[in-house]
Amino acid sequence: MNKAVKLGLGAALAAALATTAFAQVRPDRAIKYRQGIMQAQSWNLGFLAAMVKGEQPYDQAKFLYHANALEQVSHMAWEGYTPGSDQGAPNRAKPEIWKDAAKFKQAHEAFEAATPKLVAAAKVGTLDAVKGPFNDVIKTCDNCHDSFRSK
Amino acid sequence: MNKAVKLGLGAALAAALATTAFAQVRPDRAIKYRQGIMQAQSWNLGFLAAMVKGEQPYDQAKFLYHANALEQVSHMAWEGYTPGSDQGAPNRAKPEIWKDAAKFKQAHEAFEAATPKLVAAAKVGTLDAVKGPFNDVIKTCDNCHDSFRSK
Repeated sequence: MNKAVKLGLGAALAAALATTAFAQVRPDRAIKYRQGIMQAQSWNLGFLAAMVKGEQPYDQAKFLYHANALEQVSHMAWEGYTPGSDQGAPNRAKPEIWKDAAKFKQAHEAFEAATPKLVAAAKVGTLDAVKGPFNDVIKTCDNCHDSFRSK
Repeated sequence: MNKAVKLGLGAALAAALATTAFAQVRPDRAIKYRQGIMQAQSWNLGFLAAMVKGEQPYDQAKFLYHANALEQVSHMAWEGYTPGSDQGAPNRAKPEIWKDAAKFKQAHEAFEAATPKLVAAAKVGTLDAVKGPFNDVIKTCDNCHDSFRSK
């Protein structure tokens, strides 16, 4: 996955992480972890959305700050979908995450690929430059939630 | 704060963020956000601690991966302590966070200063190299919790 590149891991090690240490984590901890990352994503997206929608004045530095933070956390949630963590604490993860792992991986990677493009656009400095990349990020959120999150 | 440097903000902008957009955030969202970041910190610390304590074999790449992730999220929680977010959802933040904001800032900055040192030590590649910096990080967690988190 992309976070492997971002955080300095090779794909083989990422796979090893997923099948060894992570598998030994208590399901409730994994659930709380991934929900925590979702909160962090939502937090940063909220500030970005407010500027894109014109509810807050566009401020390049502020936009870039939250785009950077979003990008950093965008590579983290996947770790929390450990084997068996469909249950263990209240959560909205659908069984399809584990049943169709390749499709889930693809959906999460689409999100991870979209956030660096938002950072790059934020460096351009105009509201027009960030609107498209912001909407592209939101699409990857929606796509993943539509398939893999219960209502 | 240090995260201002990490994420490309000047101190003046960081202050502006704290007093404008952040102040308009609903307290419950701010609480969930900072609790989410704490979960992410705890998640990564758990893997690091397991290696430091010898419960898991020391693996440099794995250690570095979680040290990097910890370092990234270590600069994020401060945003969630918005004015008025001592209440709004169940949480353990003590009023001292807002009453003695300078001391809280100092305690959080100590944590933010310790995590990059852990990353640097993880790059050395031995378990001996990371033990001290890991314990230094834990001390900054404990110091902050002792003063600013309810039991």
